[in-house]
Amino acid sequence: MLSFKAKRIVFFGDSITEAGAKPGGYIVKMGETLAKKGIADQYELIGAGIGGNKVYDLYLRMDDDVLAKNPDIVVIWIGVNDVWHKQSSGTGTDADKFEKFYIAIIKKLQAKNIKVVLCTPAAIGERTDFTNQLDGDLNKYSQIIRNIATANNCDLVDLRKIFLDYNLKNNPENKEFGILTRDRVHLNDQGNQLVADKMVEMLVK
Amino acid sequence: MLSFKAKRIVFFGDSITEAGAKPGGYIVKMGETLAKKGIADQYELIGAGIGGNKVYDLYLRMDDDVLAKNPDIVVIWIGVNDVWHKQSSGTGTDADKFEKFYIAIIKKLQAKNIKVVLCTPAAIGERTDFTNQLDGDLNKYSQIIRNIATANNCDLVDLRKIFLDYNLKNNPENKEFGILTRDRVHLNDQGNQLVADKMVEMLVK
Amino acid sequence: MLSFKAKRIVFFGDSITEAGAKPGGYIVKMGETLAKKGIADQYELIGAGIGGNKVYDLYLRMDDDVLAKNPDIVVIWIGVNDVWHKQSSGTGTDADKFEKFYIAIIKKLQAKNIKVVLCTPAAIGERTDFTNQLDGDLNKYSQIIRNIATANNCDLVDLRKIFLDYNLKNNPENKEFGILTRDRVHLNDQGNQLVADKMVEMLVK
Amino acid sequence: MLSFKAKRIVFFGDSITEAGAKPGGYIVKMGETLAKKGIADQYELIGAGIGGNKVYDLYLRMDDDVLAKNPDIVVIWIGVNDVWHKQSSGTGTDADKFEKFYIAIIKKLQAKNIKVVLCTPAAIGERTDFTNQLDGDLNKYSQIIRNIATANNCDLVDLRKIFLDYNLKNNPENKEFGILTRDRVHLNDQGNQLVADKMVEMLVK
Repeated sequence: MLSFKAKRIVFFGDSITEAGAKPGGYIVKMGETLAKKGIADQYELIGAGIGGNKVYDLYLRMDDDVLAKNPDIVVIWIGVNDVWHKQSSGTGTDADKFEKFYIAIIKKLQAKNIKVVLCTPAAIGERTDFTNQLDGDLNKYSQIIRNIATANNCDLVDLRKIFLDYNLKNNPENKEFGILTRDRVHLNDQGNQLVADKMVEMLVK
Repeated sequence: MLSFKAKRIVFFGDSITEAGAKPGGYIVKMGETLAKKGIADQYELIGAGIGGNKVYDLYLRMDDDVLAKNPDIVVIWIGVNDVWHKQSSGTGTDADKFEKFYIAIIKKLQAKNIKVVLCTPAAIGERTDFTNQLDGDLNKYSQIIRNIATANNCDLVDLRKIFLDYNLKNNPENKEFGILTRDRVHLNDQGNQLVADKMVEMLVK
Repeated sequence: MLSFKAKRIVFFGDSITEAGAKPGGYIVKMGETLAKKGIADQYELIGAGIGGNKVYDLYLRMDDDVLAKNPDIVVIWIGVNDVWHKQSSGTGTDADKFEKFYIAIIKKLQAKNIKVVLCTPAAIGERTDFTNQLDGDLNKYSQIIRNIATANNCDLVDLRKIFLDYNLKNNPENKEFGILTRDRVHLNDQGNQLVADKMVEMLVK
Repeated sequence: MLSFKAKRIVFFGDSITEAGAKPGGYIVKMGETLAKKGIADQYELIGAGIGGNKVYDLYLRMDDDVLAKNPDIVVIWIGVNDVWHKQSSGTGTDADKFEKFYIAIIKKLQAKNIKVVLCTPAAIGERTDFTNQLDGDLNKYSQIIRNIATANNCDLVDLRKIFLDYNLKNNPENKEFGILTRDRVHLNDQGNQLVADKMVEMLVK
């Protein structure tokens, strides 16, 4: 008889991930999908999202909230607040500091042989013609994350691209929200399902 | 013998237009182009640009700086500071107020039978993949201006589109500046020439 | 029998003044006080406040909302949003532009022989030790207004000083709100009463 | 013969401290003062300031730049950029996050039996009537630091108060800079001397 150990995956992020661990959230939906595939027992999914978090908040709390859980895989999904708070409260994150803290988190995880998966920030506004106020910065920070993923051999779930592609097909009226988000940022049911599907694809490949 | 009156054109804007009236600037280059075409005497070109101006600054000074000059045509080129100052000093212009002041300027000019030409803000950064920090807002405010032009029967010089198209062809390295601007915003020689060419096209058609 | 004409006073401002014209508001309370004094028929009080207004919004709408009403006196109370919006949305007003627009409004009113009364912005937060985030700028803009009042021979209701003095006596716990405001900015009943009292003092002297 | 070990003190901060370690800087002046007192060999003073640093930058680099040096005492002087960058680039630090990171740094140092000394941010502008734009926030963050010092049994060099008291006596014209700073923030010779004097007082008591 084989000994068996489920892969423990921590989802490390902000309010989107905090909601993702609640009923209807993308982490819960992932569990449902894995169950349908009959492989639910191979994965243990743990939410570690806190509303309002920026990259340096993750760095500050990673010992307690991630390392203490001994994960096999950590999925980092951060960046919306780093950009958004520049405009809403003057407390966003400089691009160079964003990169520095992001890499510091990855290094600490990889030093423990934890596999790290990165995500780009999906959206602050769903318009597809790049007229959402913060599109420029979101694109810039997404590009920073893509470069970090390449340089550090991390898998990437490019949610920014995934959301844009989806909206180009499904948002013909160029609405600000209502397609994948309920308020330009936070996921509606369709958004949670899309993220769950893409996350499962990334895991089970 | 026919009496003759040159068309008086006031260029109403910010630091880009202030520089445009100086040697090498786009207004001076327009004069040179009109001279080459042998039609320099048909146009009187007057610069009315002041550094740091936002749309409401134009509104405040339009009596003194524009109406007092009895122009036939006014070319309005504003918007960069309305977007930029949000980020650099917290004193940009709300989108709805931008629209309100812009329309108020047009109404006052049209009430005097002055022809009004609108321009979209060209660039804050020349990257072509929409990773310049303020691209989202610049695209949004450009769209507002396009809509105002249509609704108020104004000619439009869509510099935002003109610059992007030019950079897509001539900025293969995706540089932030150096193609049409010397610092992401202010025009270099090539930028002044491109704007001059497009302005002359709009006038002489 | 003497012909008689009540003094028409327009209160020109932002959301604080918009609320001031509603039941319980400072303008309504002024009317009640004037009635008690038996001089209600000597004054006609008109609210002209619109939420979110900054100084340049007043300038844009002063023809329609103030001059069209042929007032004898205009009380200008503006400045909170000019400071606040720097922090909340990046769309506050530069100090030099604030002064320029403020003076332009006064000049237009004085040119019609309208008496102009200025007010300083009362508060964004009621702490008395200058630890409210925007105290520095509020003090600065208040000083600009005091200087404008002196230079242009306008009466001044120095609400910034009045509120601070009141809080020094009545806010021993250094609370952020709840003494004269209900939310750091907008007046509660006590705040409306204090403003009404000081406005009446200024009128009836 | 007694074995002897000088106390190693690391000054941990931003551009003010970076300059403090250069000729004419406050750390160099401290060394000169200690030499005059004949106790220079009892202290080893090490600068660890980096321009633009905010509290979370200190947290990120404290292992390499502070702990690796095995200090006996760490003097933390941070906060100007946490406040300033809100206004200048939209990347300041939220008050609650400022407190959280500050305490995290102290806890890590105290866990190694390192004595921790805190400083309040001295000034962004030297006006004494609290009309410097960021005075409100500077006062607020200074109060946070004072409370942290009390709660964590740390010595405090209250530079905010020291600078204000000095300016109340020596800045009768209410100048923005030129008394203790050369540009509202960075220390001139007099400023470096005042800080050096107060730091030595704190050490040698």
